[in-house]
Amino acid sequence: MHKRLFIPGPTEVRKEVLDAQAQWMIGHRGSEFSDLYKGILKKLEDVLQTEKHLMVFTSSGTGLMEAAIRNGVEKKVLCCVNGAFSDRWAQIAEACGKNTDRLEVEWGRAIKADMLKEKIEEKDYEAVTIVQNETSTGVRAKLGELYRAVKESEALLLVDTVSSLGGDKIDIDMWGIDMCLTSSQKCFAAPPGLAICAISDEMLDRSKKAKDKGHYFDLALMAKYAEERGQTPSTPAISLMWALDKELDFMLDEGIENRYRRHELMAGRVRGWAAKNFSLFAEPGYESVTVTCVNNSRGINVGELIKKLDEKGIAISNGYGKLKEKTFRIAHMGDLTLDDVSEVTGEIDGILGL
Amino acid sequence: MHKRLFIPGPTEVRKEVLDAQAQWMIGHRGSEFSDLYKGILKKLEDVLQTEKHLMVFTSSGTGLMEAAIRNGVEKKVLCCVNGAFSDRWAQIAEACGKNTDRLEVEWGRAIKADMLKEKIEEKDYEAVTIVQNETSTGVRAKLGELYRAVKESEALLLVDTVSSLGGDKIDIDMWGIDMCLTSSQKCFAAPPGLAICAISDEMLDRSKKAKDKGHYFDLALMAKYAEERGQTPSTPAISLMWALDKELDFMLDEGIENRYRRHELMAGRVRGWAAKNFSLFAEPGYESVTVTCVNNSRGINVGELIKKLDEKGIAISNGYGKLKEKTFRIAHMGDLTLDDVSEVTGEIDGILGL
Repeated sequence: MHKRLFIPGPTEVRKEVLDAQAQWMIGHRGSEFSDLYKGILKKLEDVLQTEKHLMVFTSSGTGLMEAAIRNGVEKKVLCCVNGAFSDRWAQIAEACGKNTDRLEVEWGRAIKADMLKEKIEEKDYEAVTIVQNETSTGVRAKLGELYRAVKESEALLLVDTVSSLGGDKIDIDMWGIDMCLTSSQKCFAAPPGLAICAISDEMLDRSKKAKDKGHYFDLALMAKYAEERGQTPSTPAISLMWALDKELDFMLDEGIENRYRRHELMAGRVRGWAAKNFSLFAEPGYESVTVTCVNNSRGINVGELIKKLDEKGIAISNGYGKLKEKTFRIAHMGDLTLDDVSEVTGEIDGILGL
Repeated sequence: MHKRLFIPGPTEVRKEVLDAQAQWMIGHRGSEFSDLYKGILKKLEDVLQTEKHLMVFTSSGTGLMEAAIRNGVEKKVLCCVNGAFSDRWAQIAEACGKNTDRLEVEWGRAIKADMLKEKIEEKDYEAVTIVQNETSTGVRAKLGELYRAVKESEALLLVDTVSSLGGDKIDIDMWGIDMCLTSSQKCFAAPPGLAICAISDEMLDRSKKAKDKGHYFDLALMAKYAEERGQTPSTPAISLMWALDKELDFMLDEGIENRYRRHELMAGRVRGWAAKNFSLFAEPGYESVTVTCVNNSRGINVGELIKKLDEKGIAISNGYGKLKEKTFRIAHMGDLTLDDVSEVTGEIDGILGL
């Protein structure tokens, strides 16, 4: 049975995009691949409306969280932490041997601009990491406010938009994001295995000078290969590139503003339903537009609900880590529609007798 | 036009394996994925006939060359260098900030056991890197002789079999290889984007203690997730896993010994043809069984030959880097047959009037 994915990644992938993977294999040093990759980079530029350096890695988004640290930080980094993925970023920084400070608030809460401003003034940080959309808690950072606190300092602004870019409007250039990273299997609605980033000239310069940044996640090398040859330093996941390319066509056909609007509408629908029947886990005013984390205020058996939905061919997620039975999550990202998410909430109503 | 690949990776992928990618997407935290991944690991155990810790990363093989360094080396590493990829491994070690010594011979030559033994005795190396099959030169290291020199020391034996594992017999356990790494798009004849490795208990211990190894290529974490849950720490390239799984079935159906024999026969055929019409670039006795590097002893226009073959739907490779016009390479790896490679040499005969 085809189970439709309303989990916060991998998300549902169109049949046409799935099929795009199954083409006869090609080499990665020929013009056919270069044309494909250059085409993807051009389409990404249009979709993300950015003039920064774009590149596509063969890895998960987590790989690029590490790339951000290795290329952007020599010694000292500040990590904003309010959930599992923002905490992971701090752990990655530590695992890379960096002096890592945390600005931490409780899971479900958002970090505010004044808190960040105050913390940044304490030390000379080389970079600040912010997870714009915390997949674990459904909290959306107000990046349009936070970026100023970072930009007033010397620090680079590193932003994880893994579960939001392409669904939630991120103004990469306006907000001066030095590295904005995401992966293929969330709002881009392509299969997992590719990670995408846009980096600033400042980040590129930092990468060029970075010591012990390694090779695989060397941003300057990736940018050089992309911009000079339309290639990648080592063999890329070519079939996934075909899938991403196909999905980018769908995204451009829809129009990016329409795509953002559709995500907002889906979020509104799911949020309204959740507020009426349960409550929202995210701090009011900071709810994600791509994933809703529902507070299990009725004390239902979340595992049981997920099992019953699964039997109907619908996959949603339980709470993340310590929130496992305390919350459940419905993703409304990628190519899903208002009808799709209404079907999910309708099925839950039926199962729970709401 | 479908162009068949006789380049040393990506290699030709069967239609059934390509199609396996196009299944409806699934989550990576459910039992369906765990069953898939556990199945792959079991099949790899059978195909590679090893009892070591197996895992599959979403990256190119180059990613695992870096993983080998970050997990296996704190300070000092010896890199055996006799071509582009073995040199890249030394560069990666340097880019990871390691004290890197090179044991270097000319491109096309092989490093011998006595040379290695002598060099290892100079210093207390934590690890030695060997590229078993130099894709750039078609030189095959005699690992069955080299391993002893490493095992007599305290150093870990790190082996790149990117373009040979699954086609050339590598006795991972017998030779005490501490990390044997490869990627999906060479002798495994699957699409690119996955990297596979087998690591020893000693390598696992070293990884557990390694500082600044980062997160994405943390071998101990990967092994823990694989062995305890049948999962990966971050989202894997699920569609590529389906392809790999399907190809492993074909490999098991053929029988691994038959697969090795087929590779030897193909190598013999291409080598015989090359020796008769040109000459071999590899030192005699050290010729690869998966890729033949042909010395352009007739001074033909390699670019022109490649172009003409391309028009006939056949892709071979020019020489690597500085060998670009001096050599050309015909790969005989993966699922190609004796008839396939004979067709290639036949077409070249026709084009060059041999």
